[in-house]
Amino acid sequence: MEVQIIGFIAGLLTTIAVLPQLLKSWKTKKVLDISPAMFMLLLGGVGLWVIYGIIKMDYPIIITNGISFLLNASMLFIMMRYKTED
Amino acid sequence: MEVQIIGFIAGLLTTIAVLPQLLKSWKTKKVLDISPAMFMLLLGGVGLWVIYGIIKMDYPIIITNGISFLLNASMLFIMMRYKTED
Repeated sequence: MEVQIIGFIAGLLTTIAVLPQLLKSWKTKKVLDISPAMFMLLLGGVGLWVIYGIIKMDYPIIITNGISFLLNASMLFIMMRYKTED
Repeated sequence: MEVQIIGFIAGLLTTIAVLPQLLKSWKTKKVLDISPAMFMLLLGGVGLWVIYGIIKMDYPIIITNGISFLLNASMLFIMMRYKTED
């Protein structure tokens, strides 16, 4: 049972990790130092995890990676928006 | 078997995602737009995944998250180094 809790906290941390970056970029409107390739790779990766979870009917995988997908997509959207304004 | 391949590619993409950011920051020496909190959360998350993998003796989890841990630690190191130079 304790192992499950470690896995849950681990998944929570990696899922919400992009949030402080999202908030920072949204506030500062500066994204030039950030690599878009990083968020594209993350988007592709968590997108495939969602497909993997759907095939295996594994809800924790679907939900955590689904949230990650939305957060990373938002980050890419913000990057595209502010990059052109520079 | 096809499902395993999807999981493998998904894990590969999320593991190597930080590489383009590492290379970009290393070349440009500019990290001001990047959130250190993002990489601290990632480091904590993948670190816990490594512990989870060790307890469960799950080598794919240990190896992929171990690599992620090293890459994210390198990123934080680069950030601390170049942030003070500004």
